[in-house]
Amino acid sequence: MKKIINDPTKVVNDTLAGLAYSNPSLEYLKEYNVILKREIKHKVGLVSGGGSGHEPAQAGYVGEGMLDAAVCGNVFASPGPEAIYEGIKKVNRNKGVLLIVTNYSGDIMNFDMAKELAEVEGVEVETVIVNDDVAVEDSTFTTGRRGIAGTVLIHKIAGAKAEMGFSLSQVKSVTNKAIANIRSFGISLSSCIIPSVGKEIFDIGEDEMEIGMGVHGEPGVERTKIKTSLEIAEIMIDRILNDFDYSNSEVALMINGLGATSVMELNILAKDVHELLKTRKVAVYKAFVGNYMTSMEMRGCSITLLKIDSELKELLDYPCNTTVIKI
Amino acid sequence: MKKIINDPTKVVNDTLAGLAYSNPSLEYLKEYNVILKREIKHKVGLVSGGGSGHEPAQAGYVGEGMLDAAVCGNVFASPGPEAIYEGIKKVNRNKGVLLIVTNYSGDIMNFDMAKELAEVEGVEVETVIVNDDVAVEDSTFTTGRRGIAGTVLIHKIAGAKAEMGFSLSQVKSVTNKAIANIRSFGISLSSCIIPSVGKEIFDIGEDEMEIGMGVHGEPGVERTKIKTSLEIAEIMIDRILNDFDYSNSEVALMINGLGATSVMELNILAKDVHELLKTRKVAVYKAFVGNYMTSMEMRGCSITLLKIDSELKELLDYPCNTTVIKI
Repeated sequence: MKKIINDPTKVVNDTLAGLAYSNPSLEYLKEYNVILKREIKHKVGLVSGGGSGHEPAQAGYVGEGMLDAAVCGNVFASPGPEAIYEGIKKVNRNKGVLLIVTNYSGDIMNFDMAKELAEVEGVEVETVIVNDDVAVEDSTFTTGRRGIAGTVLIHKIAGAKAEMGFSLSQVKSVTNKAIANIRSFGISLSSCIIPSVGKEIFDIGEDEMEIGMGVHGEPGVERTKIKTSLEIAEIMIDRILNDFDYSNSEVALMINGLGATSVMELNILAKDVHELLKTRKVAVYKAFVGNYMTSMEMRGCSITLLKIDSELKELLDYPCNTTVIKI
Repeated sequence: MKKIINDPTKVVNDTLAGLAYSNPSLEYLKEYNVILKREIKHKVGLVSGGGSGHEPAQAGYVGEGMLDAAVCGNVFASPGPEAIYEGIKKVNRNKGVLLIVTNYSGDIMNFDMAKELAEVEGVEVETVIVNDDVAVEDSTFTTGRRGIAGTVLIHKIAGAKAEMGFSLSQVKSVTNKAIANIRSFGISLSSCIIPSVGKEIFDIGEDEMEIGMGVHGEPGVERTKIKTSLEIAEIMIDRILNDFDYSNSEVALMINGLGATSVMELNILAKDVHELLKTRKVAVYKAFVGNYMTSMEMRGCSITLLKIDSELKELLDYPCNTTVIKI
């Protein structure tokens, strides 16, 4: 296993400690693997999290104008309810706490248990569930659609609304509007290795790609020979536009690398996506190109579209300051 | 060759077109493969460039407070003098132009020829040469030390000084001060593939790493079995500290991925580097962790230290707005 790591069973601890060292505005609660802002404002608290291995998600989005805390499980495993509960308590300022949860069965269950624990203590907690991946209905770890890279734009929307001082119900409402307007689709070119397991999580041929694969290697819709960037862009954009009508709309576009895709390739794909969207009468208002939600060293990418009205546009443009996104 | 590309001979065009589509403040001169700011201010102009394949370098650093133009050659090949000359002309506002050149023989020669062409036209041009890599003296494409990821911090320093309105000689002077205080060292775990060639540029075993390898696969100092993150950090930090005494100093730290190293691994390495630097009495003022100067899909990383005094600190913290670095 060729990875720059120390103890394979401590990769999450080491990753989060490294993140906090490099970003002094972040605090690392080692006991719970929670990353939180050192200064929590008096506003609606925002907590997300999930399995690790998707860095910089979610801990990289803790910061002014986005998340207040990220609760990090083991690699590809949900964090436990007590850790999530700890995150909720830390960010609670009696204005309520919103949990942004990606749609995986383990996360849904554990965030829900943490919500109940917090409610017993009198904390007002609401949950939104991100399920942006249009590739498959139901999957290895999911009932219904999976939550993938679109989650990062959801953090941005929710974070701005909370930062502006709106109430929990208002933050939840606009976040759900964004979730209703967001769709993603991914492809994969290679596997990744879970450090504690030490071998590839699936096999794929030297000339093959998988269309619609999930971020934990869950099966997609088709295994084919590797295609050109333009062909890949067409497949992905068609799948998204078949699910949601973005024509004559303004969108935020995210082209997300899964961890080991070169910046060159992401930009080449971006060129094809921009040109295709133009022919489909979809106007790109703002584009995000980079490694936003990875599967460690997996090769591949996802495309996300978020339809934006004037309210979502204002939230998207609102200042934020995290390790990854600064506006 | 498993890459998300179209025509292997057009990867540079497609990459730069994609970059410009996603960042409307950038203009792409297709004829010359130059990326430049749409609005060039009346200040000292800053031009960098070099071979492509190191994305986001250098074009990703064009923007407010950093470069005015980046001139991009083919993959791992210097841009021609006429393209560099075009870049100089475009950013010239009669306050002089500074060329930031990485120390590779082809780049030195071509930037020098472009400088002469511009001087004939009456443009005042100065050059600084970045040679931060302490791994080897002389190399496949270099006389003297190579210029690697430290170049990005040099762009930041020069960019801030120019943005503040200082003269060409003042911008050159502080940039050379930064160059005198910067050192880098890299390791590599895998090869990359030049698209037009279609095969790995070197062989390396499944359990091997190369210490001190250059960003084009130039030989380093030692081929060994893969080591732990802490061992790798120790080797790299020791090589840097043996070359320059950073003890009892404040530094900017860059931990740079070569393109296919996971964000998790970069953060784990960051943890070890931060802890090591503390024991060596080096104080990290600001840390940059990510893919800043890559070798396409190569696996590996480099570490850069820049000793900062109050002047360099002010320049490092000065606002900038590029696709990669925003302050």
